[in-house]
Amino acid sequence: MSHSHITLNQINTLPRAEAAALLTGLYEHSDWIAEQALAARPFASAAALKHAMVKVLEKAGRAPQLALVRAHPELAGKAMVSKSLTAESTNEQTKAGLTHCSEQEFAHIQQLNASYNAKFGFPFILAVRGPRGSGLNKQQIISTFERRLHNHPDYELAECLRNIHRIVEIRLNDKLGYEPALGQEVWDWHEWLAQFSDAGVVNPQAPHAAREELTVTYLTDAHLKCARTIELGMKACGFDEVHIDAVGNVVGVYKAASHDAKTLMTGSHYDTVRNGGKYDGRLGIFVPIACVRELARAGKRLPFNLEVVAFAEEEGQRYKATFLGSGALVGDFKHEWLDQQDADGITMRQAMKQAGLKVEDIPQLTRNAADYLGFVEVHIEQGPVLNELDIPLGVVTSINGSVRFVGEVVGMASHAGTTPMDRRRDAATAVAELALFVEKRAAALNAVSADTAKNPTSACVGTIGMLTVPNGSINVVPGRCQFSLDLRATTDAMRDALMNDVLAELKAICERRGLHYTLEETMRASAAPSDAKLQGLWENAVQSLGVPVFHLPSGAGHDAMKLHEVMPQAMLFVRGQNAGISHNPLESTTSDDMQLAIDAFMHLLHNTHA
Amino acid sequence: MSHSHITLNQINTLPRAEAAALLTGLYEHSDWIAEQALAARPFASAAALKHAMVKVLEKAGRAPQLALVRAHPELAGKAMVSKSLTAESTNEQTKAGLTHCSEQEFAHIQQLNASYNAKFGFPFILAVRGPRGSGLNKQQIISTFERRLHNHPDYELAECLRNIHRIVEIRLNDKLGYEPALGQEVWDWHEWLAQFSDAGVVNPQAPHAAREELTVTYLTDAHLKCARTIELGMKACGFDEVHIDAVGNVVGVYKAASHDAKTLMTGSHYDTVRNGGKYDGRLGIFVPIACVRELARAGKRLPFNLEVVAFAEEEGQRYKATFLGSGALVGDFKHEWLDQQDADGITMRQAMKQAGLKVEDIPQLTRNAADYLGFVEVHIEQGPVLNELDIPLGVVTSINGSVRFVGEVVGMASHAGTTPMDRRRDAATAVAELALFVEKRAAALNAVSADTAKNPTSACVGTIGMLTVPNGSINVVPGRCQFSLDLRATTDAMRDALMNDVLAELKAICERRGLHYTLEETMRASAAPSDAKLQGLWENAVQSLGVPVFHLPSGAGHDAMKLHEVMPQAMLFVRGQNAGISHNPLESTTSDDMQLAIDAFMHLLHNTHA
Repeated sequence: MSHSHITLNQINTLPRAEAAALLTGLYEHSDWIAEQALAARPFASAAALKHAMVKVLEKAGRAPQLALVRAHPELAGKAMVSKSLTAESTNEQTKAGLTHCSEQEFAHIQQLNASYNAKFGFPFILAVRGPRGSGLNKQQIISTFERRLHNHPDYELAECLRNIHRIVEIRLNDKLGYEPALGQEVWDWHEWLAQFSDAGVVNPQAPHAAREELTVTYLTDAHLKCARTIELGMKACGFDEVHIDAVGNVVGVYKAASHDAKTLMTGSHYDTVRNGGKYDGRLGIFVPIACVRELARAGKRLPFNLEVVAFAEEEGQRYKATFLGSGALVGDFKHEWLDQQDADGITMRQAMKQAGLKVEDIPQLTRNAADYLGFVEVHIEQGPVLNELDIPLGVVTSINGSVRFVGEVVGMASHAGTTPMDRRRDAATAVAELALFVEKRAAALNAVSADTAKNPTSACVGTIGMLTVPNGSINVVPGRCQFSLDLRATTDAMRDALMNDVLAELKAICERRGLHYTLEETMRASAAPSDAKLQGLWENAVQSLGVPVFHLPSGAGHDAMKLHEVMPQAMLFVRGQNAGISHNPLESTTSDDMQLAIDAFMHLLHNTHA
Repeated sequence: MSHSHITLNQINTLPRAEAAALLTGLYEHSDWIAEQALAARPFASAAALKHAMVKVLEKAGRAPQLALVRAHPELAGKAMVSKSLTAESTNEQTKAGLTHCSEQEFAHIQQLNASYNAKFGFPFILAVRGPRGSGLNKQQIISTFERRLHNHPDYELAECLRNIHRIVEIRLNDKLGYEPALGQEVWDWHEWLAQFSDAGVVNPQAPHAAREELTVTYLTDAHLKCARTIELGMKACGFDEVHIDAVGNVVGVYKAASHDAKTLMTGSHYDTVRNGGKYDGRLGIFVPIACVRELARAGKRLPFNLEVVAFAEEEGQRYKATFLGSGALVGDFKHEWLDQQDADGITMRQAMKQAGLKVEDIPQLTRNAADYLGFVEVHIEQGPVLNELDIPLGVVTSINGSVRFVGEVVGMASHAGTTPMDRRRDAATAVAELALFVEKRAAALNAVSADTAKNPTSACVGTIGMLTVPNGSINVVPGRCQFSLDLRATTDAMRDALMNDVLAELKAICERRGLHYTLEETMRASAAPSDAKLQGLWENAVQSLGVPVFHLPSGAGHDAMKLHEVMPQAMLFVRGQNAGISHNPLESTTSDDMQLAIDAFMHLLHNTHA
């Protein structure tokens, strides 16, 4: 049916009214959005048009946004039953199986619709279609619906708008006859690799959520199958040399035209946390593999070797040895790790031997930095920033430095009924003060840094993630309170400023309240600022796609942090769905965003000079 | 050596300089304190003189207080070794066995002395002498020393001054040839009863502190032995009728002169919490028993029957049935309790049968309120107020009303490194805000009520005693936080005002932060204000002893709360040592304070009219 497709050229060049007519039906009963977006013509890409429409709605304010949401039908609602849906909605709801609900499922969805509408005052919106059958099924739709009922109204309005933009993205693709083909293929690769998972591992935080669990820890059976799958995939895609190295990294090299060329390294990890997501790490393996396949098919050589490394271990789940894969490449494999035991008492040495890995070859893995142009890494954001701003790609300015502590405040346990408020030594309210201080101080440092950073975002974060009154009783003033501290910032200087403020405040709180405390530093990592030249390549690549060039730091650690120890590095982030949730089965991204990442990577490859 | 004793009359009537000369050596190298106190002559009692000296030092301010503390020798310090101690100090340190330390013990004490002095800038002071060998032994002294090293400097200065006042009290008793004889006897009775303890019960909050544990729960072997001991004791002391009733209460009646007289009831409980204190409950049994013995010895009858009840159960430790003993007397024994099982699966019905108690007789225990003048109860304060103010007795104005909740705030768990501060749904910082609000609001309501109450104290308290982020991780923003709430106030109206403010704040916090929460009310008890007439009897009794009449509410529940349901009641509190700590082996009081409680009780008996 390609004869019915419109073209980007038509949209850019036809008189505005005619161009607008081509875009009717994108936003449900709200053609004004596409119409207004035409003021920003010409569009460099479909992505640029999509973003222009996002901006129109963003600037319109709350009332038109609410009206747009309310213009949508309820999911499997009365409009579906009475067949008064728009053609687009009918198509989408049919593909999700919603037109074939059981009576019980239908009643449950009606009840969810009623609850949602009563709480928020607008209908629940969910982009149920994905690429090639990868959309949400009925059960996923219902569980997402149940989960979102608990959200804050402001968040839900924004989430509905984001889902509407995603629905429009798919509808626009249909109009243009455009398929993010490579993006969809890479999506499929992630699905395929996710079939391998360690058995019987239950996430203590979600013991009932283990049905479709994805857990791949170092050198398990599932892990070895992943390595073999990636190895075969690299070979099939046209890499010249592929092997599994002495720590289990899968290394593929696509050779340069000339013999003595330098090498650009890229890659990420294929292990996962327990009950993790499908994209964390793996996206940074599959995106460059897809690029190599395109280059190989076109018979095209780069002026440098491209070395893609699927790192065997980054998450530190089976053994307390994080960044094992990338660490081995920079000479930071610690010999004492070999004697660590996993939960079943199996040492790392035994596990490596059983996997056929040769421990004695590990020292030879260390790369000579002089041979390299640097390291680049694509990674899903694992945070909410891009998702919230409706921006598909983000240029990383720095991997944040971090420091962690565990501590305990000790006061005096006393009778909750008889100890007057002004005579207490309450350990928990002291930690409560500290938690609020951390929250406020990190936000304040963030605000200061926002003046100098290119984009204000998570330059500085502080978290009390563990908090407990041991053996607390309802009628006892807490005598002890245990807590953790996790402080991170774009630069070591900012991290240390936050740390010094927090430690001084802890001291002051305890002195003022007559308490004492212990504090143990458990981890400290330096910030890894991006290399200006490599970061510039990512900026140009994103720019070329017609989407905003947005800068943000990485709050999480990544393999690039290890490579940073010996060579320049820069990362590209890809937007995550569901508020950017990660280390969670809800982690998700779209084939359209994956396609943009592949396009950006290809642009970087074509603009990197040896 | 009574020829060397001075008399209160001499102190009151001699020229001031001569009177002062009689009081030299009370405060270490600081005779000015006693000298200045003489401005308040004449003293109604030795207790009045003691309190006058306390007031002199209190008004003198910080510098003279510090000087006084610094005028003291170190415990087992250089002065002891060089024999330059005052005679009084030599006597005290010898009795505590400190002059016979092993080399290792001596070195440890020297190290503690050095640490203490380095931290606080003054020597550690502890009143090591108690009545008739009941002072602290070496090990108790060392563990107290170790514990106090962790305190706040302000608290330690005050604690040193309190210990100095206690040392002076004993020195003054020596000068006067005064012994708090009944107080010491009642002290001994507590020691005797504390020999009976349930075996093998370990306090989960202090698993290593079980060596001298005191745990007496309902109808255990130790419990039955306590009942039998009290029964025999009552008979020996001259009660006319003594029996153990159908729920295990030990009931003794000292009959009135006339046959048809009404009855005054008193008493408290003899069960304990796990690893509890020796005085909680039992003081309110032994004080009236001591009074009856004095009356019986003097052949004196009151114009009313005095019924002393040692309640079998108040703490709800073995079964979830608190106030079982006093409840049975007001017709509030719940039949369903009988089927409750203890940790070993033994039902209450089985336990009662085995103890020879007749369940079918329980309904007959209900008292006819018309036969009673009311209920009075003596109890250790279980709070820090009297201890901190250096006041031995307190008149209770009301047993506070209370309400309890358990709740959970639910936000969204997310990556601690990648979730910007302004995009978090942190459940723990929300509860932190709530905890600080509870603390502040209860203090504010307290300040308001202080204008109307006779003495400002714990009119209103709020506590978050249980607080935990379930399965929290160092690098995850808390998605859930569980907590408890315990709110109490002198009146139901004030309790409800606090409750309404706290619940509104919880709602506001969660709305502002985009979180939701659950909250379950688990207990609500009405306030039990003291009967004006009975409270007046306590006021007069305390007044007669020459010590301040200080009012305070009871933050804890007591048996009097149950009797309040059918008859007027009023309580008297006795100062606890160690910041008033209770439900803890550190719970303590002095024979001097016990003597004052006995004197007050006797005064009340002689001034109560039938």
